[in-house]
Amino acid sequence: MSVTAAKGFTAAGIAAGIKESGGLDLALVVNTGPSRAAAGVFTANRVKAAPVLWSEQVLGEGRLSAVVLNSGGANACTGAPGFQDAHATAEQVAEELTAATGTEHGAGEIAVASTGLIGLRLPMDKLLPGVSTAASALSEHGGEKAALAIKTTDTVHKTARASSPAGWTVGGMAKGAGMLAPGLATMLVVLTTDADLSAEELDAALRGATRTTFDRIDSDGAMSTNDTVLLMASAASGVRAEQAEFAEAVRAVCDDLGQQLVHDAEGATKDIRIEVVNAANEDEAVTVGRTIARNNLFKCAVHGEDPNWGRVLAAIGTTDAAFDPDALDVAINGVQVCRAGAVGEDRDKVDMRFREVRVTADLHAGSASAVIWTNDLTADYVHENSAYSS
Amino acid sequence: MSVTAAKGFTAAGIAAGIKESGGLDLALVVNTGPSRAAAGVFTANRVKAAPVLWSEQVLGEGRLSAVVLNSGGANACTGAPGFQDAHATAEQVAEELTAATGTEHGAGEIAVASTGLIGLRLPMDKLLPGVSTAASALSEHGGEKAALAIKTTDTVHKTARASSPAGWTVGGMAKGAGMLAPGLATMLVVLTTDADLSAEELDAALRGATRTTFDRIDSDGAMSTNDTVLLMASAASGVRAEQAEFAEAVRAVCDDLGQQLVHDAEGATKDIRIEVVNAANEDEAVTVGRTIARNNLFKCAVHGEDPNWGRVLAAIGTTDAAFDPDALDVAINGVQVCRAGAVGEDRDKVDMRFREVRVTADLHAGSASAVIWTNDLTADYVHENSAYSS
Repeated sequence: MSVTAAKGFTAAGIAAGIKESGGLDLALVVNTGPSRAAAGVFTANRVKAAPVLWSEQVLGEGRLSAVVLNSGGANACTGAPGFQDAHATAEQVAEELTAATGTEHGAGEIAVASTGLIGLRLPMDKLLPGVSTAASALSEHGGEKAALAIKTTDTVHKTARASSPAGWTVGGMAKGAGMLAPGLATMLVVLTTDADLSAEELDAALRGATRTTFDRIDSDGAMSTNDTVLLMASAASGVRAEQAEFAEAVRAVCDDLGQQLVHDAEGATKDIRIEVVNAANEDEAVTVGRTIARNNLFKCAVHGEDPNWGRVLAAIGTTDAAFDPDALDVAINGVQVCRAGAVGEDRDKVDMRFREVRVTADLHAGSASAVIWTNDLTADYVHENSAYSS
Repeated sequence: MSVTAAKGFTAAGIAAGIKESGGLDLALVVNTGPSRAAAGVFTANRVKAAPVLWSEQVLGEGRLSAVVLNSGGANACTGAPGFQDAHATAEQVAEELTAATGTEHGAGEIAVASTGLIGLRLPMDKLLPGVSTAASALSEHGGEKAALAIKTTDTVHKTARASSPAGWTVGGMAKGAGMLAPGLATMLVVLTTDADLSAEELDAALRGATRTTFDRIDSDGAMSTNDTVLLMASAASGVRAEQAEFAEAVRAVCDDLGQQLVHDAEGATKDIRIEVVNAANEDEAVTVGRTIARNNLFKCAVHGEDPNWGRVLAAIGTTDAAFDPDALDVAINGVQVCRAGAVGEDRDKVDMRFREVRVTADLHAGSASAVIWTNDLTADYVHENSAYSS
């Protein structure tokens, strides 16, 4: 599992002292090659954290030797000094790699990712020595520890893998009680593979996968400044992956990690699968699904196990999507509670006791569909996000 | 105060038995003339309740003799039968007025407004006799009772008035723990005046007033299917109002009622005034303010009295408004916690103990500004909206 499931990668997770709790807070993932091809997807937020600005720039080359990740501080809204901190962190990793391998490494091949409170500088006096400690702890079995070191409010660490009969593997780790864009809390994901692919092939597979997985999780409608998803290929298996099969493996790993994020969303007691069907096009299906997912009244109703389909219709009615209000159908957990914009089957038939709640909205306006995942809104969510400064 | 503050109006509020609690649930407001000029503004939701569809149609004539309002049921998503119920209610009011005045009244001059649970037919066997009871209870002192009869989760009834030295008055009542568009719960507002104005003049004053008052309250981002704001003029003062002065009086009454809605929002402990300044244009100022107002993480932070300006920046960053992320300033309760997109004054200086919290976001992109009001997100909000089916 995790980022060391694929051959050609070492990883470590250590406690650098960034978190006041003393817990694991620094992860390092190194691609030992022979290939260093890489791709990345970042937050769509226009207010981007320094490590995002740094890593986007680095990824322009389509090549990464390593990624260093820290929890305990987002390094966002920290201005030019914050960007210098991200640069210095990459520099330190490059120096350690150069010393360990005898081969020259530069900061320009090192990605940086951070998560935690916005608006605080990172404690570089702890972080830089931590990079050295992590470098000396690198191991082919370090994937789990790396996954543990990127947790913030996550109650469990998240890892996944998919292997091909052709002889290659995709592995990954994720943190976050949310999603890529928009993101509840920061979502950080590192995927690795020992398949042999070009940076362009990795980019196509990654964008295709995130578009229908992480991008369709909308736990609380809030987009992070730090969301980062990286995919690195070592080619250590010696196998050229077939693009379609590889894309499907990446999608499967992203979907698996995405589901783990939903299950672990802050304060949530329900995972809500919203499927919009018969939309005029996919964009409108996504828009309608996202609008339902972001409706606080609907999210509260689901928390109360109340099949309040009126709130679903009221949410749909705020969109510009093509539909006739008198043709809308809504089913909750398979019961068609709203038919043709009005009362359908008896709402008392809806059983909402279980964690997964399925909502289907039929727009009767075309043949496109999309699935958006969200969570209920709970008193625990409020508590966690008002008591904890994140 | 209320709708009978202006001359030429009678009102009543009675218990028709629509609410299971047996509380007041039916209000009637009658314009006794001599003028019957009127204007209305309705929800922007495309899923509109039957009474909204009915009243929009009726207002096409710019003329209203009365409005009948009920709590205890929204008559939304009830299909053609629901529309027939709204029509039948207006018919009943017209018959009562005809009987009481000896002058022929038709359903086409009666507006209908409803609030309560979506997706349920109204109990017409209780509502229609209730209309007769209300008609017989009409009084020039009935404004308070009418305001009480339209409450749902409101903890207090809301009324306001403004009078001109010229000799005319604007009075009004409101219900709702939210706003016009978008609307938390349904917002119903009836404004009356004894000034003499045409339907076109009333319409201009009402649209101008709602645009910068009710339309800029965004307690929870959820838009109702039933929001209705009506303005009726009796001309009973015999005074032709000067348009600018009248528009300002209507704006003042709307602003007063709007503030009362914010103060009484479901579960709220904070009223948050978000002022966006130096935007490229007013629309962008409103968009940025609304986006901050709808950010659940920010709303939770305010609940926890945490001056978490990073969440304000993260929210602004999701908009398309003109700004440079490195030029954003944010002040909370007068303390400039974020300067030029990075750390400003010490956040510990921010005192957030009081109910009103002021956030100022300076986009440095122009000279337009706007104020949006919202509330914090609380466990009580979650409880009220998950336990109570509304």
